[in-house]
Amino acid sequence: MAKRKFELLKKLRIIPLGGVGEIGKNMTVIEYDEDIIVVDCGMSFPDDEMLGVDLVIPDMTYLERKAANIRGLVVTHGHEDHIGAIPYLLKNINVPVYGTQLTLGLIEHKLNENNVENAQLTCVAPGDILRLGCFRIEFIKVNHSIAGAVALAITTPLGVVIHTGDFKLDYTPIDGEPMDLSRLAQYGAQGVLALMSDSTNVERIGYTQSEQELGRTFEKCFLQAEGRIIVATFASNIYRIQQVADVAIAHGRFICFQGRSMVQIAEMAMNMGYLSIPIECIVDVDKLRSIPDDKVCVITTGSQGEPMSGLFRMANATHKLNVGEGDTVIISATAIPGNEKGVAKVINQLFSRGVKVIYDQMADVHVSGHARREELKLMLALIKPKFFIPIHGEHRHLYQHAEIAASMGIPLENIFAVDCGDIVELTDTFGVIAGEVPSGAVLVDGFGVGDIGMSVLRDRRILSQDGLVTVVVAVHADTGMLSASPEIVTKGFVFVRDSEELIGGALKLISDRAEQFANVHRNDWPQLKNSMKQVLKSYLYDKTGRMPMILTILMETE
Amino acid sequence: MAKRKFELLKKLRIIPLGGVGEIGKNMTVIEYDEDIIVVDCGMSFPDDEMLGVDLVIPDMTYLERKAANIRGLVVTHGHEDHIGAIPYLLKNINVPVYGTQLTLGLIEHKLNENNVENAQLTCVAPGDILRLGCFRIEFIKVNHSIAGAVALAITTPLGVVIHTGDFKLDYTPIDGEPMDLSRLAQYGAQGVLALMSDSTNVERIGYTQSEQELGRTFEKCFLQAEGRIIVATFASNIYRIQQVADVAIAHGRFICFQGRSMVQIAEMAMNMGYLSIPIECIVDVDKLRSIPDDKVCVITTGSQGEPMSGLFRMANATHKLNVGEGDTVIISATAIPGNEKGVAKVINQLFSRGVKVIYDQMADVHVSGHARREELKLMLALIKPKFFIPIHGEHRHLYQHAEIAASMGIPLENIFAVDCGDIVELTDTFGVIAGEVPSGAVLVDGFGVGDIGMSVLRDRRILSQDGLVTVVVAVHADTGMLSASPEIVTKGFVFVRDSEELIGGALKLISDRAEQFANVHRNDWPQLKNSMKQVLKSYLYDKTGRMPMILTILMETE
Repeated sequence: MAKRKFELLKKLRIIPLGGVGEIGKNMTVIEYDEDIIVVDCGMSFPDDEMLGVDLVIPDMTYLERKAANIRGLVVTHGHEDHIGAIPYLLKNINVPVYGTQLTLGLIEHKLNENNVENAQLTCVAPGDILRLGCFRIEFIKVNHSIAGAVALAITTPLGVVIHTGDFKLDYTPIDGEPMDLSRLAQYGAQGVLALMSDSTNVERIGYTQSEQELGRTFEKCFLQAEGRIIVATFASNIYRIQQVADVAIAHGRFICFQGRSMVQIAEMAMNMGYLSIPIECIVDVDKLRSIPDDKVCVITTGSQGEPMSGLFRMANATHKLNVGEGDTVIISATAIPGNEKGVAKVINQLFSRGVKVIYDQMADVHVSGHARREELKLMLALIKPKFFIPIHGEHRHLYQHAEIAASMGIPLENIFAVDCGDIVELTDTFGVIAGEVPSGAVLVDGFGVGDIGMSVLRDRRILSQDGLVTVVVAVHADTGMLSASPEIVTKGFVFVRDSEELIGGALKLISDRAEQFANVHRNDWPQLKNSMKQVLKSYLYDKTGRMPMILTILMETE
Repeated sequence: MAKRKFELLKKLRIIPLGGVGEIGKNMTVIEYDEDIIVVDCGMSFPDDEMLGVDLVIPDMTYLERKAANIRGLVVTHGHEDHIGAIPYLLKNINVPVYGTQLTLGLIEHKLNENNVENAQLTCVAPGDILRLGCFRIEFIKVNHSIAGAVALAITTPLGVVIHTGDFKLDYTPIDGEPMDLSRLAQYGAQGVLALMSDSTNVERIGYTQSEQELGRTFEKCFLQAEGRIIVATFASNIYRIQQVADVAIAHGRFICFQGRSMVQIAEMAMNMGYLSIPIECIVDVDKLRSIPDDKVCVITTGSQGEPMSGLFRMANATHKLNVGEGDTVIISATAIPGNEKGVAKVINQLFSRGVKVIYDQMADVHVSGHARREELKLMLALIKPKFFIPIHGEHRHLYQHAEIAASMGIPLENIFAVDCGDIVELTDTFGVIAGEVPSGAVLVDGFGVGDIGMSVLRDRRILSQDGLVTVVVAVHADTGMLSASPEIVTKGFVFVRDSEELIGGALKLISDRAEQFANVHRNDWPQLKNSMKQVLKSYLYDKTGRMPMILTILMETE
């Protein structure tokens, strides 16, 4: 009895470090007493304002503080927004990592690229049970746009937490195995403390279509195409690749993989048995010349219009495959928000080359990997959780998912549409946001992790808008007189060759100002610098309507 | 007979200077012998790569060359992509401008903002006929998302050219006047030489819904809302504003306009009779405090998430209207490509404040102003043109519109899916692309029109990515020895306070290199500058993984 009472004082803490209030960099901390497990560790791509930033990872300060308590990182699947920050975590804290085979394959690849050694990777499969500290974790098969995706049933001392990962419900998936509804239902029947569920597609009514539906579209496209067929999709979407390959082979076409990640992941997936294509049906790009066009199917990267991807290079005629009249390109994807213009550009370029392009506005060439409203309701109905935490969504998604949960009878006070870093503290009867831990976007730029802040980004933004004017003035340390003619160098401001008059006028202003100073304020260099900056700023704005960054450098010479 | 033969030698030239191969900056030159008319003169917004550029206008070199021949500018409607470049045209060539009342009102406003005086603006109405040189132009009512939109029937010596402008077919428009199908059909029956038709919505099957359909959605939203209702839409969409106002007044709500352009255009449209709202139903924002929340309807700008717009400021809590719990925001628009992220951000912020947001993914709160496939077919069927030039679209749109025309029996050789600047030369029997005129994107940045080119943009891009490192070295002109310590200033590269060691190392490298040079290559300044740049570039990349722009400035002191 005494023990039970003591247990009750301890609380389960669920702390999302990413993936709430945003799409991307998913990461959740689950903590009880002196045990912590981490679910996923993803990256996201920089916003438009994060100029020059390579990628964004979650703030892991809290985990660094509690490093000794971390029992492991459990990964739901191998998409970048779930694994992309693992190298950065492991460089600081070498925790054991658990995931299914393909997930680990993708993680390993990423660790190699980032020179992370000695990682402890352990392979699990749906149905496996893992014990980490006080937690018992069961891996449950879900459907998603990548193979090897799992949900987690985490039994804690206070009850079961279900974390769906990313999921959809596909009754006729390509790998033949629908989401394990029974197992989820069993947990639901036994009683679940909290459900954390994917909110990505909450805005969409009904059900997400089965991956298999695309087979019909591909069939139709292949029947109509007379020349080469090029299909662009996500390299990690093994099911999509399998479907395209199946239809291609049925039509007597050879498969050629293009784009670095497509080639690498396809090879990995074939070795692991996720992807099944007879080896004699695969040809190298250099062999394509000897094969008739109507016997060729290229599967390539570039469905997001990414510069240097396979499809991008084809559209720009910098790829061996000289695409043109007679070829059909199928873009089997939808543009991720922010990529719309890049994708449109590639489509336009392909049309201009005479290529027939089939894309999502025109035909059903893509289905989502995320559950829509009715599937989300099914999940809530099966799990019947006491507490609900919508995850994997911007605020608009979380709030709408919360509304659904409320409409299904979960009391509002048991629903937590939270921000990154919020501590959701649960007992078996009561939940509260108990505070917050450090959280936010850590920017990675080159080798620098987190060293780029607002001031550097602000400078980059100013530089990107109207460029830069650098003024250098050298003065004698003793007399304050100019020891050389002032220099002005501009970059990104005006076209230099057409601006002699403008720059000449600026040099005159600067010389005059420096001479005045030599006579009056001698040696008050900060004031001179500031004065030069102000006079130049007004002059340049009056002449050009632009406000470049002005850098004044004063050299004191002997 | 001789005259007729002579006439036949002359050709009609149709030259799009914008709006083909792109959405935006629509402008077309129509030329016969020594007469030119120009249809529309629009701007577009800069691409992501055009850093710091304010707006983009068509290259008008050809018109400047032929200025004496231009008989007038005819404007189809008042959207920015049809009128935005008029100030730049009129500053160079003061041609007479013709448009309907609202169109001219918007043009006048724009000319005032740009200090263009003495413009010759002439108001026309649907049904009016205008003679400009050898051309006879009839204005024909069309439906669109702005009032006062017209198509043009341009009778030339070689036949009739129909230019649709932007259009949709609305049988139940808010102003009660559907597109003038009869007039278009009459021209079609008499024989049309060429049709230029809006391709914007060619990817969409079926028909665009009537503007009136939205009335039902608004009605439902207003019935459910208990607090204030805020509707964000395009300021120029008078019909939308009229509908919202009608529903609001029927529900006993007062109207409050917010956002500079919304206030201005609503006032203009009311004065002209395009918008009809009883004056006693309109209240100033400062009066809102004395009105119960459920009697308030705010109509505001910001449907595209534009910084400083009404809705943006409300979402960011920098607007008098302190929106929050109980308020309903309806975003009656769809995000223009490129604006998706900005709109999503505003929606997320509003949700976080407890506002109920209704937007296009959730309900039918917007209909397009552009014709879909079946309407485009109807236009082709009514006009039955000999030649077809799809306009107002990226390549993907033009090619798909061309495909529709071909499927309806227009021979491929009579269809011209052209690029900006292409000269489509027509006789009454034969058409050909006869060459091209200068064309492309002229960038406007501050007061500069066309002075920003690739090199400036490239510099801005480099600066935006990894910032700048400026190195200044002062050397004695006679000895080549350093006359001051070298200086390094960085902007947008690293956080300066944390980088003392990095910069210290760089200064050391620079000093060493300069001293070596003084001993060996004395006075070979270009080589010294280059050498410093190279050594610094490698050093900084090795230490940071970044490649900032490096500016080396060498001062020769006395």
